[in-house]
Amino acid sequence: MTFEVIARDPASAARRGVLRTPHGEVETPAFIPCATAGSVKGLVHEQLADIGASIILCNTFHLMLRPGADVVHRLGKLHRFIGWDRTLLTDSGGFQLFSMSELAKVSPEGIAFSSPWDGKKMFLTPEDVIDLQVKIGADIIVSLDYCTPYPATHRDAERQLRMTEDWEARCRRAFVERDDARSQLLAGVIQGSIYPELRLRSIESVLAIGFDTLAVGGLSVGEPRQAMHEVLDCLAPHYPDHLPRHLLGVGTPEDILEGVRRGIDLFDCVMPTRNARNGLLFTSRGKLRIKNARYAGDPAPVDPACRCYTCRNFSRGYLRHLFMANEISSATLNTIHNLHFYLDMMAKIRESITLSRFEALRKELAGSSWQEMEAKPQ
Amino acid sequence: MTFEVIARDPASAARRGVLRTPHGEVETPAFIPCATAGSVKGLVHEQLADIGASIILCNTFHLMLRPGADVVHRLGKLHRFIGWDRTLLTDSGGFQLFSMSELAKVSPEGIAFSSPWDGKKMFLTPEDVIDLQVKIGADIIVSLDYCTPYPATHRDAERQLRMTEDWEARCRRAFVERDDARSQLLAGVIQGSIYPELRLRSIESVLAIGFDTLAVGGLSVGEPRQAMHEVLDCLAPHYPDHLPRHLLGVGTPEDILEGVRRGIDLFDCVMPTRNARNGLLFTSRGKLRIKNARYAGDPAPVDPACRCYTCRNFSRGYLRHLFMANEISSATLNTIHNLHFYLDMMAKIRESITLSRFEALRKELAGSSWQEMEAKPQ
Repeated sequence: MTFEVIARDPASAARRGVLRTPHGEVETPAFIPCATAGSVKGLVHEQLADIGASIILCNTFHLMLRPGADVVHRLGKLHRFIGWDRTLLTDSGGFQLFSMSELAKVSPEGIAFSSPWDGKKMFLTPEDVIDLQVKIGADIIVSLDYCTPYPATHRDAERQLRMTEDWEARCRRAFVERDDARSQLLAGVIQGSIYPELRLRSIESVLAIGFDTLAVGGLSVGEPRQAMHEVLDCLAPHYPDHLPRHLLGVGTPEDILEGVRRGIDLFDCVMPTRNARNGLLFTSRGKLRIKNARYAGDPAPVDPACRCYTCRNFSRGYLRHLFMANEISSATLNTIHNLHFYLDMMAKIRESITLSRFEALRKELAGSSWQEMEAKPQ
Repeated sequence: MTFEVIARDPASAARRGVLRTPHGEVETPAFIPCATAGSVKGLVHEQLADIGASIILCNTFHLMLRPGADVVHRLGKLHRFIGWDRTLLTDSGGFQLFSMSELAKVSPEGIAFSSPWDGKKMFLTPEDVIDLQVKIGADIIVSLDYCTPYPATHRDAERQLRMTEDWEARCRRAFVERDDARSQLLAGVIQGSIYPELRLRSIESVLAIGFDTLAVGGLSVGEPRQAMHEVLDCLAPHYPDHLPRHLLGVGTPEDILEGVRRGIDLFDCVMPTRNARNGLLFTSRGKLRIKNARYAGDPAPVDPACRCYTCRNFSRGYLRHLFMANEISSATLNTIHNLHFYLDMMAKIRESITLSRFEALRKELAGSSWQEMEAKPQ
């Protein structure tokens, strides 16, 4: 059994599970740090493992351009290439292609675009996306979808969903034909913008095609938070119990709690890592901008309640100094802290589900974790 | 006893020793990694400790400008501020001041300069240099010298040496008056350019003033290697046995071997760390430029003979990819490797002295370690 539910929250759709891959177990709900081009920015893998990451995500778009899927394949596929022996996920590359829309042109056949490195014209079909990800060889791969931007008219969202449905069927066909993909899991992506009937049509289509894991795409793309919740609410009763559900590219600690509550098992986002490099740190008492002059002489750790390497060893004063001096170790120490915050929150969430007190935890955390620490007296 | 010689090479002036400070023992000959502004660029301290660093160097010039000596002092002095519990050394700041000569104006009273950050006019006397370093609180501090550039006429070198002698006497006086400097060691610096009689006069003066450790400055500033060796040769018979000798800002692996041979105990240089960030890696078979296209598909480690974290886990292909993709982890992994190479070489040197085979090791290493690996067939 690839995925097993081991506990359920009585007051919500939250559930605790274990996802098994050839590279170990992932306890869910899980947060997946982003290792864009094969490295979580600012960290080396042993630091990531120390923090407790059991799964990381690499971007197919970045890897296919540099160093190229063939290079990754020749060097023993992604695990060996990057030297990470736990679970790996690659995305389809579609999201990055849609993000640079001035360079990409979409047709039913696939996506035409120019390489951002050298301007070279390229064309990617759904079959190519599978071929690339099989060559790269992550444990979990994602089929190509059309990521509908926000806002979108119902008409546009429906037209794009049709393309997603077609592409995903082609992805699945290409995938099952590959003997060298037997140990991989393929995710189908649910689109449909903020329109409940399109989302329901999309999950029906994804389930009809038949995938190994489910992904919910096209959220956290600018829509109001309420709209995200409504989409997740409408989908929640329709997920088969035995498939893990991944909310793509989400999100803030609050988004994660709201997602877990609505039955989501997996999350990924650059938020903890990118914010770390920009000096924005998550703490149990709110967010903290390390650049703030008030921290220059502050001997306290970033978060006295935190047990990460950074908080056990370094003061806010030192971390501010490293940030102001543009030291590389600023990115490293801040990233260790923020990822520890995220993974520690996931561990608390999992434990709370086992103890049937997820809702209590959610309310507790919701009250404190996302205001600026500077905005309130300490 | 602060410094103890525990073995001597029968065929040269090389010696093995132990330097004891309030923050542990430093086995010599030792290489001191540079933690310019309180952080070895690319690493966090636990990585540095894993590599085996027992001493690091911070630059007074950088710290006094940012975050300021008072901030360091208020946050518990340098060890606590940066969270490093082993031995620390600060330099005088003089070298950085002389490096930006268009901004600095030297007079017998001290050095006038403009802050490179905000252009603010500043003036540093020898007494200020001691005050700053006592406030900062490293285990070993360095008195202010006039670092004679190369080339220099005998007349200029002598005039500048006179200033060095005066400044060092003032530094020592200021130092012994400080009750809060009791646990610190003060180094006197030997100058005199490439002129043997000036160098001998300088060491005589330094010994007359009386310092806790000796430093040889003004070498590796552009002079021919032969000239550096001649200066070290002329000084070697005159060092008192009980004082450790630090060759400031040196150098290449070859320079280190030549220095050890001439009785030097301590070395510091940005060479391994700066080169690492530029993708130049030291190996047992020569230097390797990781950017070279030939490494793109290379599954071998940087140095198959190396046991560092980088070589145990990652291929040249991956390291080249990280370098080309400008990943932060490229700096980290390369720095781990290069510092491991340096510290491992120092460990081999120490062992060879104990075994009375330093000269054999020196010849062995000199034959292989500093050509470009690319330049010869493998």
